[in-house]
Amino acid sequence: MADEIILLDFWHSPFAMRVRIALAEKGIEYESREEDLSNKSSLLLKMNPVYKQVPVLIHNGRPICESLTIVEYIDEVWPLQLLPSNPYDKANAMFWADYVGKKIYPSGKLVWGATGEVQEAAKKEMIGNMKELEGELGDKPYFGGESFGFTDVAFIPFCTWFYALETCGEFSIIHNCPKLVAWTKRCMQRESVAKSLPDQYKVYCFLMELKKKFEAR
Amino acid sequence: MADEIILLDFWHSPFAMRVRIALAEKGIEYESREEDLSNKSSLLLKMNPVYKQVPVLIHNGRPICESLTIVEYIDEVWPLQLLPSNPYDKANAMFWADYVGKKIYPSGKLVWGATGEVQEAAKKEMIGNMKELEGELGDKPYFGGESFGFTDVAFIPFCTWFYALETCGEFSIIHNCPKLVAWTKRCMQRESVAKSLPDQYKVYCFLMELKKKFEAR
Repeated sequence: MADEIILLDFWHSPFAMRVRIALAEKGIEYESREEDLSNKSSLLLKMNPVYKQVPVLIHNGRPICESLTIVEYIDEVWPLQLLPSNPYDKANAMFWADYVGKKIYPSGKLVWGATGEVQEAAKKEMIGNMKELEGELGDKPYFGGESFGFTDVAFIPFCTWFYALETCGEFSIIHNCPKLVAWTKRCMQRESVAKSLPDQYKVYCFLMELKKKFEAR
Repeated sequence: MADEIILLDFWHSPFAMRVRIALAEKGIEYESREEDLSNKSSLLLKMNPVYKQVPVLIHNGRPICESLTIVEYIDEVWPLQLLPSNPYDKANAMFWADYVGKKIYPSGKLVWGATGEVQEAAKKEMIGNMKELEGELGDKPYFGGESFGFTDVAFIPFCTWFYALETCGEFSIIHNCPKLVAWTKRCMQRESVAKSLPDQYKVYCFLMELKKKFEAR
């Protein structure tokens, strides 16, 4: 019997995009169930009672939560490796993948979501974080080296924020991090990435709606 | 030639304790270098330029940072497994290990470090978090089942906070989570844990000194 694979998904979530990319990289067929985050499904509440968040991968009825844990799970269960087999390189890939969630996500959120001094401080921090990631990328085509891997999967969804970041923060990412932008273009040429990521302008419009809602509270 | 293994350490850090326990579980000899966190060594700044934090494991000159990544690295390099080999059980262990850092650490910090309403809210949240962990433990001797594993390594260092939490928060952990306290006692019977964890009263005194310093700012 074929595996039953369901992804509790949300089109705009960069964390859900990670899982979509990993599944596409492995050529795994699955059913994406779009969640309404203002009215979460009983399946989401049952499958991720701790965080009640997407993404959740349900593999033959059993849930796996937290995007990097899901990507690592997918990497172990299905062939074609995203994580290096050498433990040191693997630890390094996990370190930088984790860095994206710890650094880029919170500072980026304040660049598009805040105003004034808070926004200005977040912008400086985010540019610093991106430069740090660019330093790790160096002259390699991908974070993992010659082939697209775990850190690439973890970071590339955040390029869907770039238009919103540049517009709200009034700065140029390519001016600050040209190699990183070249890397995003390289990743976007992969079918797995291109088909998993929404358009940056659509994301911008969504984020501005979200910002309005928060400001109205 | 034998491996050169150095741990950039700090006696009170629960994250460093995770690494000490994992190394002890595997019977690995290493040199612990105690950091002065108010005057960090140039080695720490060089080996962990991103976070400038302990623990850092330096294995034959190469650094590995972030406690759970280090424990997973140790688990892959040296024999005797802490993580289950089944990918689903492994993902589950990683989920709960990550939960400890995301939930217990920040709420616990406010129970011993804050006062008034903030402390009261943190106490409620922390008890909820502990009950959630106790639910995951269930009637098993360890989080991983019959044997001491990854989630146990991730969580047990935080029992060194229990005296401080109970004293500052004026509540009883055993009253709220009896199975969790029985689990801590079971873990403490292991030599790897007992020799890696400082005395709870000593930790309490240290935390109260820290609190005074913050309040004086």
